[in-house]
Amino acid sequence: MSVTGPAGFRAAGVAAGIKAAGARDLALVVNDGPQQSAAGVFTTNKVKAAPVLWSQQVLQERKLRAIVLNSGCANACTGPGGFQDTHATAEKVADVLGVGAIEIAVCSTGLIGERLPMDALLPGVDSAAKALDTGEQAALDAATAVLTTDSKAKQAHRAHDGGWSIGGFAKGAGMLAPNMATMLSVITTDVAISGADLDEALRAATRVTFDRLDVDGGTSTNDTVLVMASGASGVEASKDEFTALLTEVCHDLVRQLQDDAEGATKTIDITVRGAVSEADAVTIGRIVAEDNLVKTAMFGSDPNWGRIAMALGRAQAEIDVDKVEIATNGVTLYADGATARDRSEADLSGRQIEIVIDLHLGEHTATILSTDLSHDYVEENSAYSS
Amino acid sequence: MSVTGPAGFRAAGVAAGIKAAGARDLALVVNDGPQQSAAGVFTTNKVKAAPVLWSQQVLQERKLRAIVLNSGCANACTGPGGFQDTHATAEKVADVLGVGAIEIAVCSTGLIGERLPMDALLPGVDSAAKALDTGEQAALDAATAVLTTDSKAKQAHRAHDGGWSIGGFAKGAGMLAPNMATMLSVITTDVAISGADLDEALRAATRVTFDRLDVDGGTSTNDTVLVMASGASGVEASKDEFTALLTEVCHDLVRQLQDDAEGATKTIDITVRGAVSEADAVTIGRIVAEDNLVKTAMFGSDPNWGRIAMALGRAQAEIDVDKVEIATNGVTLYADGATARDRSEADLSGRQIEIVIDLHLGEHTATILSTDLSHDYVEENSAYSS
Repeated sequence: MSVTGPAGFRAAGVAAGIKAAGARDLALVVNDGPQQSAAGVFTTNKVKAAPVLWSQQVLQERKLRAIVLNSGCANACTGPGGFQDTHATAEKVADVLGVGAIEIAVCSTGLIGERLPMDALLPGVDSAAKALDTGEQAALDAATAVLTTDSKAKQAHRAHDGGWSIGGFAKGAGMLAPNMATMLSVITTDVAISGADLDEALRAATRVTFDRLDVDGGTSTNDTVLVMASGASGVEASKDEFTALLTEVCHDLVRQLQDDAEGATKTIDITVRGAVSEADAVTIGRIVAEDNLVKTAMFGSDPNWGRIAMALGRAQAEIDVDKVEIATNGVTLYADGATARDRSEADLSGRQIEIVIDLHLGEHTATILSTDLSHDYVEENSAYSS
Repeated sequence: MSVTGPAGFRAAGVAAGIKAAGARDLALVVNDGPQQSAAGVFTTNKVKAAPVLWSQQVLQERKLRAIVLNSGCANACTGPGGFQDTHATAEKVADVLGVGAIEIAVCSTGLIGERLPMDALLPGVDSAAKALDTGEQAALDAATAVLTTDSKAKQAHRAHDGGWSIGGFAKGAGMLAPNMATMLSVITTDVAISGADLDEALRAATRVTFDRLDVDGGTSTNDTVLVMASGASGVEASKDEFTALLTEVCHDLVRQLQDDAEGATKTIDITVRGAVSEADAVTIGRIVAEDNLVKTAMFGSDPNWGRIAMALGRAQAEIDVDKVEIATNGVTLYADGATARDRSEADLSGRQIEIVIDLHLGEHTATILSTDLSHDYVEENSAYSS
């Protein structure tokens, strides 16, 4: 269950013919209200795809009736023509639903630099509108239609005792280091909440979830997380409760993205403790997460902590080398400026690896979720254009 | 010919037993004067190996009688004991040469976190001192003794019409993104020059050579470039002429490092033009050089410029997306905010790939030298601790 879990939403995912081979490639998620609050966070990349530029504009009203998403083409680096394609997509959805285009967000994912096949996409919107449904299958179809190199759909749902819930789906397997958003994610809730509060909650939740995922440093041109609230439960949750549950849903989705990342044979959680600021903890966690020598060592199940020390030493952050402690899977290997225990004592043979770096300088902590660098990653990203 | 090319220098490279299998692992380069000017640039990594801390200290006098280098052990993250090992190494060399330890620089490269086997290293210094010679073979032995995962020695030599020359060797194949220095490099000259002028020339030369090499983003704990001037030619060159020739030697060495980088099947030169500052050009070049999706696309000979656009959009630099032009091997693929020519027109099947990014914003240019990300890179860095 995902986006149709909360009351007030319908979804669909169809094969419009954007992708070859008849796979589902067009998704539609509609908010039937009574409210239409919405918020979004978008890529920090300076190169922004046309649908990002469009959706940022329409989100200024903090109101959405529907989100249309396609896979198979990112519609990025496509110039004014590409922006017109996004606009035409929104107009088509608005027309079919009898609303204004300003209430329609658009998301695209796939190859950069190619134009959308509008002659396939526009009829696909009609098919998707006809398929709209409140059931679980419709949500799964939508979550499936946005996939690219993902091996499976990523969905999450959490119900609150107070009679409301939050659901969502996400996609993304490569070019995956979201900053204020991941590749694409749609989240729905039936709580009654204003657009401003929704925006605040979304930023708080993504800051500690999507923004902490770093598979390959590749903040994409299309990263987008959108949330829509229908108010259909009639319940107004407290801001704290809503933010907490939203964070849980985001975290669930991010874990699924981490686990299904391109070529990953290990999921690596890098926790930085004792930092003078959260920003420092994140900076250090990311530089270790993105370091190819650390990533290949982890692929080889080798607790080569010297590479972790090298990587963190490159960070623009406050570090006292003699105070740093490095542990892998619970075994402290480096402390007091020298080897603590022999690395043969740390067993990294399993899929899950935990790296803990304690700076012993302050009270701040952050965990970055990452993966290893494997032959499959190289194969997948050298053999195919994606 | 390399460090013994200029007059006034002797070199040696011997097998001291630091590495297994009897490979050469200890090098000695001695400046017999009459002058002993010297300068050095060192890693910007906050985690600095003991020999870096030592050599930075002794270089404050801008005078060196000799440099001792070992492979097989980086002597990094080894605490006070590791620093004492470096000190004892310098004392031993000073003793054998009849000079002061303050005139001896020490360099180490190899695995981080292991202590030096001093019972092998110290007798090795005696053997090296006995083997000191002014010939080409001695220089090659020294250049060979510093290698780790390198497949071959890297040497360079340039003679000036005015009767003086510059020679040098370098090593480094992974953890290779020097910043103010590469893994290890020793350069000699017989020009008569002060330590202060030598320092200035070295910084100018490395800024546009060693600092422009970025194989895997891994600025190491041991990066060091040292230069010694003997004055044995009796010639005082102009500062400009000396800096120009020194830059040529450094560039020659860096090209060899790039070409022999771990697992490289492609050498990739990324030129950024039209930047508002040189710093911006370097920042953009480096972020493209370090991007795994760009690197794997290059491994696959795929001119997937969308990944280049994504990578440069992440840079903390001034960019106007609609003005950017991206060309690979002479074919402009992206311009005016959209696809310019079909990427099938760019042939990347050869070993050498040139990426040119023109920002069309200013007059500044920089070229970053990099390599692709191949199966061999993953294999080499996951199968062995190095």
